[in-house]
Amino acid sequence: MPPRPIDHSDCRSVSEILSRVGDKWTVLVVMTLKTAPLRFNDIKRAVGGISQQMLTRTLRTLERDGMVSRTVYPTVPPQVEYALTDLGQSLAEPVMQLGRWAQTHLGVIHDNRQRYDGSAT
Amino acid sequence: MPPRPIDHSDCRSVSEILSRVGDKWTVLVVMTLKTAPLRFNDIKRAVGGISQQMLTRTLRTLERDGMVSRTVYPTVPPQVEYALTDLGQSLAEPVMQLGRWAQTHLGVIHDNRQRYDGSAT
Repeated sequence: MPPRPIDHSDCRSVSEILSRVGDKWTVLVVMTLKTAPLRFNDIKRAVGGISQQMLTRTLRTLERDGMVSRTVYPTVPPQVEYALTDLGQSLAEPVMQLGRWAQTHLGVIHDNRQRYDGSAT
Repeated sequence: MPPRPIDHSDCRSVSEILSRVGDKWTVLVVMTLKTAPLRFNDIKRAVGGISQQMLTRTLRTLERDGMVSRTVYPTVPPQVEYALTDLGQSLAEPVMQLGRWAQTHLGVIHDNRQRYDGSAT
């Protein structure tokens, strides 16, 4: 049986994107911003357990990728609001799909692992 | 603006699954097996650049999760064939969706990064 040709460039870009969105904090921040724009401290509270430094880094990476926009309102003190861009919204969709898959199958995977570990010689 | 409530358990399971499938070799092996079952050396050839040890480890992890089945045919020498299970196939779908997203938007993300880095103070 000959190996199927696969398009490596596709897989590598898939892999790069998956590695990025696979980052726990990235997923949580994108999910949090999916419904509405939020301020830094609101995101921090909603995500829970994320340090100030890690949230800053995660938001900056998402901003750099063009997934998140950062709007400064000229109030005193200035308020900064973060929102998913159209690009970020479009990523949220397939991530949610994978999320639904994970939710549906995580129990089975857990059972499979226990069975595998139990039968390992 | 109050923080939106998010279901952390969902996000964490999403995150765990994304981290797993985000592994470059896992993605490449699942993509390779998507169309048909293959033998070890066929997978190795199709994936390209993967070491024997890393492919063994990747297949074992997928087998443990119940994503890949391993069939031994009683030939001389015995032939071992790897195939995606129904669970593995069902994962391949959302991964491909994310793959299409990545393919479509990778250029834009790259441009965004260059613009961001150029305008960074």
